Amino acid sequence: MIIIKGGVTSPKGFLANGVKAGIKYSGRKDLALIYSEVPAVAAGAFTTNRCQASPVRISRTHLKYRYHQAIIVNSGNANCANGRSGDRDAIAMAKNAAMALGVNYTALLVASTGIIGRNLPIEKIIKAIPGLVSGLSEKNGSIFAETIMTTDTRPKEFAVKVKASGSVITIGGACKGVGMIYPDMKTERHATMLAFITTDAAISKNMLEAALDEAIADTFNMVSVDGDMSTNDSCFIMANGLAGNKKILSKGADYRKFTDALKFLATELAKMLAADGEGATKLVEIEVKGARTAHDAKAIARKISTSNLLKCAIFGEDPNWGRVVAAAGASGVRFDIDRMDIYLGPVKALSNGAISGSFDKERARKSLKDKKVNITVDLKSGRLKAKAWTCDLSKEYVSINSEYST
Amino acid sequence: MIIIKGGVTSPKGFLANGVKAGIKYSGRKDLALIYSEVPAVAAGAFTTNRCQASPVRISRTHLKYRYHQAIIVNSGNANCANGRSGDRDAIAMAKNAAMALGVNYTALLVASTGIIGRNLPIEKIIKAIPGLVSGLSEKNGSIFAETIMTTDTRPKEFAVKVKASGSVITIGGACKGVGMIYPDMKTERHATMLAFITTDAAISKNMLEAALDEAIADTFNMVSVDGDMSTNDSCFIMANGLAGNKKILSKGADYRKFTDALKFLATELAKMLAADGEGATKLVEIEVKGARTAHDAKAIARKISTSNLLKCAIFGEDPNWGRVVAAAGASGVRFDIDRMDIYLGPVKALSNGAISGSFDKERARKSLKDKKVNITVDLKSGRLKAKAWTCDLSKEYVSINSEYST
Repeated sequence: MIIIKGGVTSPKGFLANGVKAGIKYSGRKDLALIYSEVPAVAAGAFTTNRCQASPVRISRTHLKYRYHQAIIVNSGNANCANGRSGDRDAIAMAKNAAMALGVNYTALLVASTGIIGRNLPIEKIIKAIPGLVSGLSEKNGSIFAETIMTTDTRPKEFAVKVKASGSVITIGGACKGVGMIYPDMKTERHATMLAFITTDAAISKNMLEAALDEAIADTFNMVSVDGDMSTNDSCFIMANGLAGNKKILSKGADYRKFTDALKFLATELAKMLAADGEGATKLVEIEVKGARTAHDAKAIARKISTSNLLKCAIFGEDPNWGRVVAAAGASGVRFDIDRMDIYLGPVKALSNGAISGSFDKERARKSLKDKKVNITVDLKSGRLKAKAWTCDLSKEYVSINSEYST
Repeated sequence: MIIIKGGVTSPKGFLANGVKAGIKYSGRKDLALIYSEVPAVAAGAFTTNRCQASPVRISRTHLKYRYHQAIIVNSGNANCANGRSGDRDAIAMAKNAAMALGVNYTALLVASTGIIGRNLPIEKIIKAIPGLVSGLSEKNGSIFAETIMTTDTRPKEFAVKVKASGSVITIGGACKGVGMIYPDMKTERHATMLAFITTDAAISKNMLEAALDEAIADTFNMVSVDGDMSTNDSCFIMANGLAGNKKILSKGADYRKFTDALKFLATELAKMLAADGEGATKLVEIEVKGARTAHDAKAIARKISTSNLLKCAIFGEDPNWGRVVAAAGASGVRFDIDRMDIYLGPVKALSNGAISGSFDKERARKSLKDKKVNITVDLKSGRLKAKAWTCDLSKEYVSINSEYST
């Protein structure tokens, strides 16, 4: 597997674009499209929030169909809590894009991100669709990544190439965050993180769903910016088969290679999300190891990743490892504190449940000065482990979120 | 029931005090004591955090005994994650106080609050105990409330009188917060919130435990400042019988009157905690009604109370009710969004899952300018309801918690 510079248009046969439809008050680009030149199989994973946005409801229905060819996305408005008119607007987005592309309406998937509880300016969107479609190009992957941004400070894209049965498969992706980020997506058969992955792999819809399931569990679903689960989180993947590999129909060696590459890509995108969390100055990686079960390791890592107190301490570069103890203990997982070790970067802070004799506070403080902070918890009770990602909690986060809707 | 000015020394036979032992760097009072002139029955509820501080472990053991007479409390150090030496220090606190008071060591309960992972300066504490005991007075309830403070900006005390069987029972209480506040205490038979309640009621230990259970469930356990559950949360109640009422031995009319008064007092203390949350500028009361079960109502109210995004919006007085929708939906409770109504203060924002036709954003914004903000969610699916309390999330919260341990 090799990393290449690229994004959603890196795989063969994918075009993209982004335009200004006038949804965002800022006047920035806000309507984006990915298009596969040939029909593709697709899979999606969506928020498990009980209040699901209209585009989530519509995309879930469309994914029951066999082939898909495009994803239309708007930023600046979540189209959530808009009742039936919200559903009608999401359908209108899909229908108008389908007409302009000359494909079936059910071949369209839809996503939205932005404020909740405002009607989508659907007339503006309909007006912008012809320009959006006519500008489709394999050169516009980065424009797509830029257009889907809301409070993101930078576009997030990534691409890899992997060999399977002699053919080279390319996987590309783009995603956006970066507030209301605590996804727990299920493939549905169910973030407002949005992630869009494209690939030219030849793969069955079933295997694509299985691969997406595996890929999100340890990546997007282990990211937290603020612990607030969105109504709009969605992760889509489209596979159009143009790589010419022997079609992946079962969980053999090719499936493994493809899924590992997909997981790698999803991990990189997930880390970009956490690193660009609203107001973030640091990426925080939390690893829990020595757990009895994978579920235990994940539950503890995820609980630590949502500790406001720890996130403030990291913002202040304050080696207050006691907050890791408290968060781990609040996870609901049974473990023995008297066996637990905690490291801030390379510095052992807790050893068997009490402060480490060798704890060097100034060295620990130094390790918090990096742009990437590592926290390790070793339960020394088993062999399972998990990683979660978050960012620090800064005053800027409060500024961003106390002035958002106005 | 009537409200009186007072605190832990309002009931007959209770004395208290607080002194400077030198635990806090600020040099403020940090060692406190409550003492009942006669043996009392006691009950305690403690954090369900898997990592429990040493004083929690010791107090849980002591509560297995029949009678108690004093509670010694230090602020400035949590005595948590200190291994066996932490346990030894908690025992030494209890033993030295017991000796100075001339009571049995198991008649002492212990509580600590402050930073995690630092050894307790036990020599300083032992040195301060004689002065602490000699200054015990029924006039020093407020000094007790002041001494237990950490990041609290003001002491929190409350007292009520209630008639039972012709006698007048007094209940007094004091508590402190105000970071790492997301208690989920269980009587053990299991907040760093600390709450101390005294009463001169004559009541059996069993009935006192039952009353405490009832009282904390809808009060302290429904408070969140930052969603971080502490290792030290403790709520104690001591009842010394000096009111001379007919002893409460079963769940009859007198039990009901006593427990209702206790619940009222706990509610007021809980609201004081939320209102004084670290960096708080507002008290937020969230009421969920129309739920199918009490558990559903509580789970939704509690989830909303931990939404960083909503708390930032309230800090900014921004009527961004969509964040209430997202938080409710993230609670894990099944409900029908198309029936849900949401009110900001008296202003209906969401009506049957979509923006209310009558929504007046400027009126809603006005309702957020008060020191107390009310948010109401009506699921219109049942008859059960619950209330939770939190505060806004301000830049000051980040300041306080990015500079704590240094």
